[in-house]
Amino acid sequence: MSVSPYQQLEREWQRLHAFRGALSLLRWDAAVMMPRGSAAVRGNQLAALETETHALLTSPRISRLLDRAQASASMLGEWEFANLREMRRQRDRAIAMPIALITRLAQTVARAEGQWLEARAQQNFAIFAPHLEEVLNLIRDKAALVGQALNLSPYDALADEFSPGITTADYDSLFHGYGRRLPSLVREAIELQKARPVAPIAGRFNRAQQRALTVDVMQSMGFSFDHGRLDESTHAFTEGFRGDVRVTTRFNPDDCLSGLLGALHEAGHAMYANGLPAEWTEQPVGHDCGMALEESQSLLIEMILVRSRAFVRFLKPLLEKHFGVSGPEWHEENLYRQLTRVRRSPIRVEADELTYPLHVQLRYHLERQLLAGELSVAQLPEAWADQLEQRLGIRPDNAADGALQDIHWALGSFGYFPSYAMGAAIAAQLAEGLRRDLPELDAQISAGDFSGLIAWLGQHVHSFGARLKPQELILAATGKPISASASLRYLEAKYLEQSASSSAAA
Amino acid sequence: MSVSPYQQLEREWQRLHAFRGALSLLRWDAAVMMPRGSAAVRGNQLAALETETHALLTSPRISRLLDRAQASASMLGEWEFANLREMRRQRDRAIAMPIALITRLAQTVARAEGQWLEARAQQNFAIFAPHLEEVLNLIRDKAALVGQALNLSPYDALADEFSPGITTADYDSLFHGYGRRLPSLVREAIELQKARPVAPIAGRFNRAQQRALTVDVMQSMGFSFDHGRLDESTHAFTEGFRGDVRVTTRFNPDDCLSGLLGALHEAGHAMYANGLPAEWTEQPVGHDCGMALEESQSLLIEMILVRSRAFVRFLKPLLEKHFGVSGPEWHEENLYRQLTRVRRSPIRVEADELTYPLHVQLRYHLERQLLAGELSVAQLPEAWADQLEQRLGIRPDNAADGALQDIHWALGSFGYFPSYAMGAAIAAQLAEGLRRDLPELDAQISAGDFSGLIAWLGQHVHSFGARLKPQELILAATGKPISASASLRYLEAKYLEQSASSSAAA
Repeated sequence: MSVSPYQQLEREWQRLHAFRGALSLLRWDAAVMMPRGSAAVRGNQLAALETETHALLTSPRISRLLDRAQASASMLGEWEFANLREMRRQRDRAIAMPIALITRLAQTVARAEGQWLEARAQQNFAIFAPHLEEVLNLIRDKAALVGQALNLSPYDALADEFSPGITTADYDSLFHGYGRRLPSLVREAIELQKARPVAPIAGRFNRAQQRALTVDVMQSMGFSFDHGRLDESTHAFTEGFRGDVRVTTRFNPDDCLSGLLGALHEAGHAMYANGLPAEWTEQPVGHDCGMALEESQSLLIEMILVRSRAFVRFLKPLLEKHFGVSGPEWHEENLYRQLTRVRRSPIRVEADELTYPLHVQLRYHLERQLLAGELSVAQLPEAWADQLEQRLGIRPDNAADGALQDIHWALGSFGYFPSYAMGAAIAAQLAEGLRRDLPELDAQISAGDFSGLIAWLGQHVHSFGARLKPQELILAATGKPISASASLRYLEAKYLEQSASSSAAA
Repeated sequence: MSVSPYQQLEREWQRLHAFRGALSLLRWDAAVMMPRGSAAVRGNQLAALETETHALLTSPRISRLLDRAQASASMLGEWEFANLREMRRQRDRAIAMPIALITRLAQTVARAEGQWLEARAQQNFAIFAPHLEEVLNLIRDKAALVGQALNLSPYDALADEFSPGITTADYDSLFHGYGRRLPSLVREAIELQKARPVAPIAGRFNRAQQRALTVDVMQSMGFSFDHGRLDESTHAFTEGFRGDVRVTTRFNPDDCLSGLLGALHEAGHAMYANGLPAEWTEQPVGHDCGMALEESQSLLIEMILVRSRAFVRFLKPLLEKHFGVSGPEWHEENLYRQLTRVRRSPIRVEADELTYPLHVQLRYHLERQLLAGELSVAQLPEAWADQLEQRLGIRPDNAADGALQDIHWALGSFGYFPSYAMGAAIAAQLAEGLRRDLPELDAQISAGDFSGLIAWLGQHVHSFGARLKPQELILAATGKPISASASLRYLEAKYLEQSASSSAAA
């Protein structure tokens, strides 16, 4: 029996998937297990495998097969058709980038990352500036080349890599929505919370205790330790694909909740990965729908679910069990206040859900100015401080808490940030749909039963893989295009709640 | 500047080295870290990378470059010349194996391994027999094809993969030497040890304590935890290449020494890897000189070094420190007796250094008969028991302790076993050279100073990489061809020692 061009493509992507799985494991190991003197060896392994996948994607054979498969695409089923589209998308993006640019970018960001760390440690932006300049120049080349190939504006060409089909217009509209209401909402919430003091949760809780609690919660949620792991690393992350998905977090003995929250954020990503359609695991259409959707899954868990009264009710006895604690600071209402405290902080990763989109908006604004040449690298620290003051009324104490705060630009990840805010918006939109379809959700969560939640997400999000574009997926799941509306409704209801001890879940 | 064919080959082998490093990490992870449900995913990743390396080795481009480089090989330096020889060797072996046979063998051994585990658990050889038959048929095909290509007899074609240039004639001569003396030496040693009772070392020692002790000893020996790791796994092993070498062992709370000994065996491999010539790390000539040499390095540490009075003197205070023990059973002489006890056991991996070569000889004998069709799979368990009785005077209680004992045949590793015995012989030969050049060795070891030992091995073995064949390397290092003579001299002196409390190190 002859093998069709489309089927041949599926086989090539099976190989690609295996390579990408190996790459993912090499990255996981580098962050979690690797001896510190082995970084150069690992760098060579990563480069060899990345070069191989790029060579495969850009080979004349693949392009020929794509053309031939496209010619008879009308014969393909819905999934196969979408899979072919995703294959082309990967090829188009790969072929737009000359290997020389990829190599230079890889070398430049490797250096830039080291200098970023050094600059942060010394709180001295000048150390990082020339390296950011170099990265920025290469990223401008990339944006121009990919934009030309895909017929997108330079910034959209970058952003499209992370969240396909979402453009500057979508992000502008999203931030317009957030920007109109959030700054005042932050003020109102902080005012209201003044009358609701939080008893501080003190004490040291060792990592073994924190890990046991976290594993307990993750198992309740349905995270499969037969197809995944939980480890510790400097920064929390998720690596791997359906079948072997590994999350990390960082346990701080002086903060008994931050490690748990970090792990649950990542567990949101992991459950997305393991909920993707099994029969398409090795194919592009079986992968996630981009970073906005990814972040929606992690923020839905970490922010909307975990910072709800229903979840606190479930969590409280587990805290007592694993930490052996009692006292007023461990009461439900106090834990809830702790988890929903709004603070004007200069740090994005420590931000509450109310100020978070404002942090992201600032970065979106600045990275577009940088790319367009409207802002010079030298002006960045001052512009950052000004923008933060404008949005939150505070200025960072130093560059490490300002323009040196995030690693993304050092790594060349321009166009990534807005996915975070869109993820928050999508999470709230999905949560509205969830509550509509599943009125008993709070009761289930309080009882430690997450099956209804996971099943709903599986049905409306996970099982689609990348068959639909993010906008289509959310329209299908919620009946509305992506916007800040549901998120603002949710935040207003939760943070302007009048009766502090109301038992209505947020 | 134009790049010569030889230089182009070096670049291709750099890529191969990166792939092989990735493969090694994937295998390490599978045995140490991987969630148990992820085996199928990992299998696909390993297969894809192995197929890729095979495709690279057998590509027309590589063969063209090898021919062109060979044509001007007289211009190459000594190392480059040997490197080209090793490249050809890899290509020749790869090209002799059709990809269909490789794939079938991989699938067959994957099944056979599972059935071997099951057969062992049930102590029922019949479960494993048909799978061994299938493996054996494919291995016969492999032996015939590779033998034809390399002009070697079928068995030599297999054995040559593990220890290049060592043939059946060498192994026969080795085992002839061992066979003439060892059985009587075992009897004499056991007789002598009857008058020297061992006070049993009892007690439970948790894994954290055992690990701390093992790390302490490994650090003293110079194992670099900046370029390596120690972990636990079901069976001890070493994975990785110079720059990132990881060893494992298994800590048994009821046996405070077996985990340490396993780790030090593997540390012998690891120190070999890290002592290989730095400038050739990514090239074939910079790798080890085959399994006989590998085993010589691990057995030199685990058997000759560790089971010496000098090492016991170093170890005793560490046992006291990590285990907080005292009493007569922890005295030096008793520890030494414990470590040098000769026992007629049916199990190879538990064997002392006196009976070990006899266990290997049995397997060498049987696997050659199996391959030649002189022994059927059905006859194997009985033949095994007969051979064991003939050599050691005992019969295994069941198939799990007999023909199902080792995993090697299930994995298709025929021709591997004799390297173990040759490794033991080489270790003793090297130890003779060491003692001649370094009379103060015992004093150094007692004081925990292993630098003289490691430097000597580095100079005479490690730093040569694969530039010389094993026979040449040992001739250069010791002035004599490989034989059982030094090993028998060493074993006789140690195990027929008349004064039990002599302070002369073994």
